[in-house]
Amino acid sequence: MTDYNKLFGAFFTELADAAGQVTLKYFRKVIPVDDKQDKSPVTQADREIEQTLREMIAKKFPGHGILGEEFGAENTDAEFVWVIDPIDGTKSFITGRPMFGTIVGLVHDGKPVMGLIDQAYTRERWMGVTDQWATHNGVAIKVAAPRPLDKARLYIGSITMFEGPHFEGYLKLCRTAKLTQYACDCYAYGLLAMGWADVLAEQRLKLYDVAGAVPIITGAGGYIGDWHGRTIDKNFDGFAVAASTRELAMQAAEILTK
Amino acid sequence: MTDYNKLFGAFFTELADAAGQVTLKYFRKVIPVDDKQDKSPVTQADREIEQTLREMIAKKFPGHGILGEEFGAENTDAEFVWVIDPIDGTKSFITGRPMFGTIVGLVHDGKPVMGLIDQAYTRERWMGVTDQWATHNGVAIKVAAPRPLDKARLYIGSITMFEGPHFEGYLKLCRTAKLTQYACDCYAYGLLAMGWADVLAEQRLKLYDVAGAVPIITGAGGYIGDWHGRTIDKNFDGFAVAASTRELAMQAAEILTK
Repeated sequence: MTDYNKLFGAFFTELADAAGQVTLKYFRKVIPVDDKQDKSPVTQADREIEQTLREMIAKKFPGHGILGEEFGAENTDAEFVWVIDPIDGTKSFITGRPMFGTIVGLVHDGKPVMGLIDQAYTRERWMGVTDQWATHNGVAIKVAAPRPLDKARLYIGSITMFEGPHFEGYLKLCRTAKLTQYACDCYAYGLLAMGWADVLAEQRLKLYDVAGAVPIITGAGGYIGDWHGRTIDKNFDGFAVAASTRELAMQAAEILTK
Repeated sequence: MTDYNKLFGAFFTELADAAGQVTLKYFRKVIPVDDKQDKSPVTQADREIEQTLREMIAKKFPGHGILGEEFGAENTDAEFVWVIDPIDGTKSFITGRPMFGTIVGLVHDGKPVMGLIDQAYTRERWMGVTDQWATHNGVAIKVAAPRPLDKARLYIGSITMFEGPHFEGYLKLCRTAKLTQYACDCYAYGLLAMGWADVLAEQRLKLYDVAGAVPIITGAGGYIGDWHGRTIDKNFDGFAVAASTRELAMQAAEILTK
């Protein structure tokens, strides 16, 4: 079995430190916000973080591939591919709320194997190796004990994210959970891995939104997949659900798709 | 003119420090969560923070009144009344997300004159005196320059909070703003006062949810009132809207009430 932590753990830490430095240079500073083609906002901070990480990866592992939100795919047929979301939760970032983060996932033969979520302002860092372990600031974490959906704490994407065919199921799920919070960026994945949330759901994602979260959720003993119960890999369809158990995740997905 | 900061500024800081100490003792610890009559959650942390602050106030200003979320009203006909929400954003608190806070407002002759919002985990503290000044961690803050609603950054309460007669207006407002975030606890009021959000709206509030925020918003040059444009005082009806300008606030309120 490949020891991913031994091979890449220290480098993940270097990436997180570098991303955090750029993040804090721009957070709560007035900077231009551009609208991308899909209407989502992007800033110089997104671009500069991703550039920084891409250069570090290219220098350290020239044979590896890179897939990033802002600058696209490079050599993604390689055995190892680094998948980067420089600022996940850009809407939080540009409104001064420290609930965004940098996500980096390492994909080996098409499957996420090691991941990082970093929140530079609150100084929180999650790391994990798929199905093995996960940590929050270096301390081992575990998902919560199983709860039924009507006792569960749900984190879910916004109304705007769920406009469209699944809107009725979305409202129903929001009303079924014991408690619902309408923010589902990387920070929510971190909270789920620590046992502070039980289930989360999103749609219209890209692989870079979740590749780094998969190892953290599963390393903490949780489940993450698409709405049809398939593993998240390079063929990910954009619909993600995660929970303390597979059963709870599938219950939520069923309501969303009905 | 009464110099509220000279009379009460140091004591506000003592209250904030004390509340923060209790907060961090309970944050991200597994503690029982009770459902109140209105189904909202409450914990030992809420109760212990409020008890601590009430004791400090009673000792320092025995002639003053106190109104708190958990332990009710005491001598509220007094000239000065301290209005306390020990943990605003309890749903964030119990799901491990540091977007809750302690709010303390000082009401003089029925009107909020000085206020505090404290977030102990991120170490952020907002203070303000109505129409005079506001600070974030001691640094003066101002609301953003005016923007029209379709360019505005909106923070608003959750779907669950807006169930009922205003739900259609709620969905319309969420879709009209340039960018909407569905979390509207005290932290959002702090962001608005710093210029990182332009408008926020909530309903079903109590005076303790906003009394401490009014001085911070208006001290930073912003506007806050009820949905009919009335000042927030001891007769507050529970519908609040705040913005960088009165015009923007009223535009949002009109959509909500139509």
